[in-house]
Amino acid sequence: MDVQKIEAFVRVWAALLLLLTACLVGLDTQSKYIFYVDRKITYKELHALGALVYVASAAAGYNLLQLGRSVFVSRYLGNSKGSYRYLAWVSYLLDQMVVYIAFGTNSAAVEHSVLALSGMKEFQWMKWCNKFTRFCFQIGGALVSGYAACALMVLATSISAFNLFRLYSSEKFLRLKST
Amino acid sequence: MDVQKIEAFVRVWAALLLLLTACLVGLDTQSKYIFYVDRKITYKELHALGALVYVASAAAGYNLLQLGRSVFVSRYLGNSKGSYRYLAWVSYLLDQMVVYIAFGTNSAAVEHSVLALSGMKEFQWMKWCNKFTRFCFQIGGALVSGYAACALMVLATSISAFNLFRLYSSEKFLRLKST
Repeated sequence: MDVQKIEAFVRVWAALLLLLTACLVGLDTQSKYIFYVDRKITYKELHALGALVYVASAAAGYNLLQLGRSVFVSRYLGNSKGSYRYLAWVSYLLDQMVVYIAFGTNSAAVEHSVLALSGMKEFQWMKWCNKFTRFCFQIGGALVSGYAACALMVLATSISAFNLFRLYSSEKFLRLKST
Repeated sequence: MDVQKIEAFVRVWAALLLLLTACLVGLDTQSKYIFYVDRKITYKELHALGALVYVASAAAGYNLLQLGRSVFVSRYLGNSKGSYRYLAWVSYLLDQMVVYIAFGTNSAAVEHSVLALSGMKEFQWMKWCNKFTRFCFQIGGALVSGYAACALMVLATSISAFNLFRLYSSEKFLRLKST
């Protein structure tokens, strides 16, 4: 098994699932007559969902960029470990940042959706999902796909960490193996 | 610089900040007359905050356990790398799990708090923070402390990853260095 192939596989799937999330949320819309008024609901009304569309799209693009980086390194930098080390650090840190932003946004969207689903009696907040059922099911699917993408990105981050930290000595702290 | 000392320092601070979060949220309470009725608000009314109290306490306990593990390994298993490897894997996987659960719960609590702060006109959800100002400020402090703890736990997870992956060869995939 080659670690680069696994990474490419994981990143392609993460990007696809993130795009699926962004599309499911972004294209979700439902109209309904409520109190004799035609009400239309889209992701723009729930700010956490709006953030999710942008973050998921950006994260999908980031994963494709990382895929390009991975191919570039294996093609052109295969043996010069020196310059590869800085790229591995950058890649690891960016990976961490992106996965936490995506995971946090997804969790915030889940919380907002749970409130729309259950309402909150103590605050006199009404439920809305019993009125817009199809809309809510589509959002639910998007959030599941978002968590699946996050799980894959955690795996990709672990691979980044593996590629970075295995360059270091197992005896001394932050000492390179070759030195 | 010794990696074990850094890890101990990071874990102690993470545990302290998590405890601070749990206490700030758990002990937060405010009473107010609203529409001639005495209304008391605690963390139990906002389910995301209730979850945060439990998760933060559990994560604080986990970090103290990991601190014990770190001391135990450096005392008794210092040189037998073989058995240490499995412990490093367990430690890395548990660390990942705990940090994502804590981070997700904190983000959900932030989303719930933002809704309490700003309300949501489209859904006819009222603001509540203008009524319970002191309560909301205390929750805000707790959430900042929660994110700080998460940042430290991310650092601790990186140290776990470093301790695990530096045992592996930099040439072959998942091959130990000593073999």
